[in-house]
Amino acid sequence: MTATAPSERSRVRRAPKRADYDRETIDAILDEALVAHLGFVADGQPYVIPTLHARVGDEVLIHGSAASRMVRTLGAGVPACLTVTLIDGLVLARSAFHHSMNYRSVVVLGEARLVEGEAEREAALAAFTDKLVPGRWDEVRTPSRQELKGTRVLALPLTEASAKLRAGGPVDDDEDYDLDVWAGVVPLRVTQGAIEPDVRLREGVSVSPSVAAWVGRGADAVA
Amino acid sequence: MTATAPSERSRVRRAPKRADYDRETIDAILDEALVAHLGFVADGQPYVIPTLHARVGDEVLIHGSAASRMVRTLGAGVPACLTVTLIDGLVLARSAFHHSMNYRSVVVLGEARLVEGEAEREAALAAFTDKLVPGRWDEVRTPSRQELKGTRVLALPLTEASAKLRAGGPVDDDEDYDLDVWAGVVPLRVTQGAIEPDVRLREGVSVSPSVAAWVGRGADAVA
Repeated sequence: MTATAPSERSRVRRAPKRADYDRETIDAILDEALVAHLGFVADGQPYVIPTLHARVGDEVLIHGSAASRMVRTLGAGVPACLTVTLIDGLVLARSAFHHSMNYRSVVVLGEARLVEGEAEREAALAAFTDKLVPGRWDEVRTPSRQELKGTRVLALPLTEASAKLRAGGPVDDDEDYDLDVWAGVVPLRVTQGAIEPDVRLREGVSVSPSVAAWVGRGADAVA
Repeated sequence: MTATAPSERSRVRRAPKRADYDRETIDAILDEALVAHLGFVADGQPYVIPTLHARVGDEVLIHGSAASRMVRTLGAGVPACLTVTLIDGLVLARSAFHHSMNYRSVVVLGEARLVEGEAEREAALAAFTDKLVPGRWDEVRTPSRQELKGTRVLALPLTEASAKLRAGGPVDDDEDYDLDVWAGVVPLRVTQGAIEPDVRLREGVSVSPSVAAWVGRGADAVA
């Protein structure tokens, strides 16, 4: 863990001992999270929109239709905030006040740049596809020129990023440890269910290697 | 599904067929989500902070320390946005472009009010505790006057809320259905692992009824 925030505004103020400014920590959380919450301001009103993201090197990429308000607003170069949160468990203390969650979160502040050029946009779409299921890009039809034309990709630099993590059991007040109250952690994780082949899947087409490998990672097996 | 958004700014513009403005739908998503992402603006910069929430009637409650920037900013009555997202699955199409996620999300716009009075704040803390594990509040030490004093509770009305949902299989372009590419859905859900009793748990204290019932809901059993 590094003790220094990259900027004053990205410094974790509440529970600073849970802060981590290491890129390795930040990258791991961004890479594991399947969805980001992107904040921007339009007409003085903040909006927080869930969106797929993909980290590529020192940037987090997001994408959307050229017609989307989120993409149009952010493409103009305004302040943004991208946050991801992984929930690891419920922390059940002896007192109501010390109930908590175990989590790993990342907050990225900054202004996004519009990713220009068809090749760069195509590389970004590959990153989004392989973020869902590693190796998937090589199995599917790649985007047409028309599809690429209607897609905007934005890149947010990781220069002002911070992670915040809580792990471990509950921390109660000294006198509460004598209470006959059960305390502990209920771990939570995202698991896959049995895959559901598309109803229009061509006969004889079996699960592709990328999907089989991805599903194999989890607790639940392929149907 | 109701066709009418409560306000122009809360109307879902992208993929409007996925919008739902029914309170029943909105409430169910808010109640299932364990964490919300709260957006606010400070010095022109949007911040998106993960936080525990609890819906009580026609409001969503959040809380924090009286010293937190989020709580101080929002308590002053500024525009806020609270978003929750449940991830239900990966949608794997035959083309990269039509890859998607199945999800259920809610966006609430508005200004929060500071919840005043010790009794109201205590009721809010009960709601947060029972949101984590229903029935937990009755098993634990309730907040002291000092704990209540340091806690701020904010309530955001549900008057400007919208839900957006995607479900079902991939939707490919007509000509792509002939491709020999596997397509389908990988369902995702949050499951509980084996509970971890606190290392300082008093001997003879067994898992409380609320925790046993909560864990029993999931796929994984109590250790």
